[in-house]
Amino acid sequence: MIELTVDLAGRAYPIHIGAGAMKLLGSELKRLGATKVLVVTNATVGPLYEQAALQSIRAQLPELAVSVVTLPDGECYKDLHHIEQILSAAVDAGLDRKSYMVALGGGVIGDMTGFAASMWMRGIDFIQVPTTLLAQVDSSVGGKTGVNLPSGKNLIGAFHQPRSVIADTAVLKTLPAREISAGIAEVIKYGLLGDAAFFSYLEENMSRLRALDEEVLKKVVAHCCEMKKEIVREDERESGVRAKLNLGHTFGHAIEKLTGYSAWLHGEAVAAGCVMAAMLSEETGRLQREDVDRIKKLILAAGLPAGIAGLSKQAALRAMASDKKSVAGVIRFVLMQGIGTSLVSTVDAEALDSVMSRSGWI
Amino acid sequence: MIELTVDLAGRAYPIHIGAGAMKLLGSELKRLGATKVLVVTNATVGPLYEQAALQSIRAQLPELAVSVVTLPDGECYKDLHHIEQILSAAVDAGLDRKSYMVALGGGVIGDMTGFAASMWMRGIDFIQVPTTLLAQVDSSVGGKTGVNLPSGKNLIGAFHQPRSVIADTAVLKTLPAREISAGIAEVIKYGLLGDAAFFSYLEENMSRLRALDEEVLKKVVAHCCEMKKEIVREDERESGVRAKLNLGHTFGHAIEKLTGYSAWLHGEAVAAGCVMAAMLSEETGRLQREDVDRIKKLILAAGLPAGIAGLSKQAALRAMASDKKSVAGVIRFVLMQGIGTSLVSTVDAEALDSVMSRSGWI
Repeated sequence: MIELTVDLAGRAYPIHIGAGAMKLLGSELKRLGATKVLVVTNATVGPLYEQAALQSIRAQLPELAVSVVTLPDGECYKDLHHIEQILSAAVDAGLDRKSYMVALGGGVIGDMTGFAASMWMRGIDFIQVPTTLLAQVDSSVGGKTGVNLPSGKNLIGAFHQPRSVIADTAVLKTLPAREISAGIAEVIKYGLLGDAAFFSYLEENMSRLRALDEEVLKKVVAHCCEMKKEIVREDERESGVRAKLNLGHTFGHAIEKLTGYSAWLHGEAVAAGCVMAAMLSEETGRLQREDVDRIKKLILAAGLPAGIAGLSKQAALRAMASDKKSVAGVIRFVLMQGIGTSLVSTVDAEALDSVMSRSGWI
Repeated sequence: MIELTVDLAGRAYPIHIGAGAMKLLGSELKRLGATKVLVVTNATVGPLYEQAALQSIRAQLPELAVSVVTLPDGECYKDLHHIEQILSAAVDAGLDRKSYMVALGGGVIGDMTGFAASMWMRGIDFIQVPTTLLAQVDSSVGGKTGVNLPSGKNLIGAFHQPRSVIADTAVLKTLPAREISAGIAEVIKYGLLGDAAFFSYLEENMSRLRALDEEVLKKVVAHCCEMKKEIVREDERESGVRAKLNLGHTFGHAIEKLTGYSAWLHGEAVAAGCVMAAMLSEETGRLQREDVDRIKKLILAAGLPAGIAGLSKQAALRAMASDKKSVAGVIRFVLMQGIGTSLVSTVDAEALDSVMSRSGWI
């Protein structure tokens, strides 16, 4: 088991990584002094891991009142209406200010549970138990929570840090291959935005990673969490360096929005978005053609899409102009200055238009 | 004009108090560098003061894009559904991370605007322009925002401080007498919880206050804001002393809930709640009978109810057990140790039952 610490002034919290980490849920709730617990999960993850989570709690806290609320599975349910469903369960469970919510699921469940916890009685604590690779390497750490509005992804939310993250790599074995690949998109993103050596490691170990080799998996999850926690420590509220974590996300969010948050998985959209960001970096003189090719190749090797077909360029530009990173309608992209170095920049309209046409937007 | 400063580490903000303060809205938005503005108001206040607010903005920032969203008027609309209405207006207005919301209205508008601002893009800034006495003396300062759930008042929300508070005492002239009285309930509360001399001042000046005498009004608003800002500075997140501000609110919230948030104004419920808290303080040996009588007399002199009739004791106990101050179902009351000194305490069931019966619960 690997234990990392996210170091935020007065609010440090651990990330537990490894096969079997789920067993720590009960002892973490005990350590934190939870008065009651509401486990939030979805219809896919619940049947697989709810019992293991409840057992871990019961073993440590046999008297504790624990309730479960099960949401439908999918990014398209990540909305205020389903936040109300969690809050309504919190009412029924009688949660008080010292109670905990537990997010048992992927990024959607983590984002929604964190957001609901941030608003219940103006903020109670919660624990992340991410069950997808994407959530383990990225979304469960750092305190960004929220939901989508019909007009844009993650347009509303809160910064609300978990009190503990439990990343049990063994649960990834039940993930469909497509979800594994989607998670690898965010893994590749870490290499691209800040660590060329890690990018090379991924080139060498992609097939072992996709096969969920325990050694590679643990190393990869820990490395991504390590990078993320450093970025979050430096810039919790995304006033600077944290924006780099959005590499691939400006295009990615537009893809998700234009396809109704259902046809593409978030990681797939981020993968295609990373390739577009690479092409834009090349177009603006920051990245070599060979590097763009390496990036495309790794993304394809991960089983991910390197481009799109037939989505509307105009609709995407409108979507990107209302992205959270845009100020006064000006779109800001995360670009690469070589693999492993990133920066946030605007780009001129011609370069953007050219890259969008070449990557399949119409 | 009186200017106070709420002193929070790194996030100090001014409170401007006086007749004509509304004129400062434009210069405040200019000073703060707003890129766009969404004014949130209601169907009662909008027709009266929206133009004055817009004129103040246009005079300073003629180019600024300003939108207005008008909610229905009333505590019963303080829910997530109407938060969505604000967010939808934010989408239409194209608000970005540097945009501002402006709460133009009473406590309900302030609470809702602040909550919507706290979640839009995970938090943008907002300005409070309170137009009721209650909002000017209490709810606009301190950063508590939120909405009601069907099962309880202010059960969800966020701590989100405004960047400026503009309390124009001249706008109170259009308030119905009943709303003035409701605001005075919170004013009396400040005397009860922490300032015996202020309580005496109110006894001497109640008729001038109800008549909106400018000198008394300015002094009262400033004094309450002064007390509130000190309490908030000491305990922003209500882990201690701030809980005293809930004097009268445990009973008050139960009254509001049992009457559907429509028959009673918040201040009226707080007034009756303060009398019940006083009786409970007497019952538990903390307050003299004469002081309870003084409190009742002042509340009646303010045109406020000192008791209730015919609401269900059992339903109230259930409501209070799910109040935010309750932990593990144990109700905690703000009690008085003499007028001007308060403390948070549990009480035994018999004392509570006796006081509830005597104050009109059945």
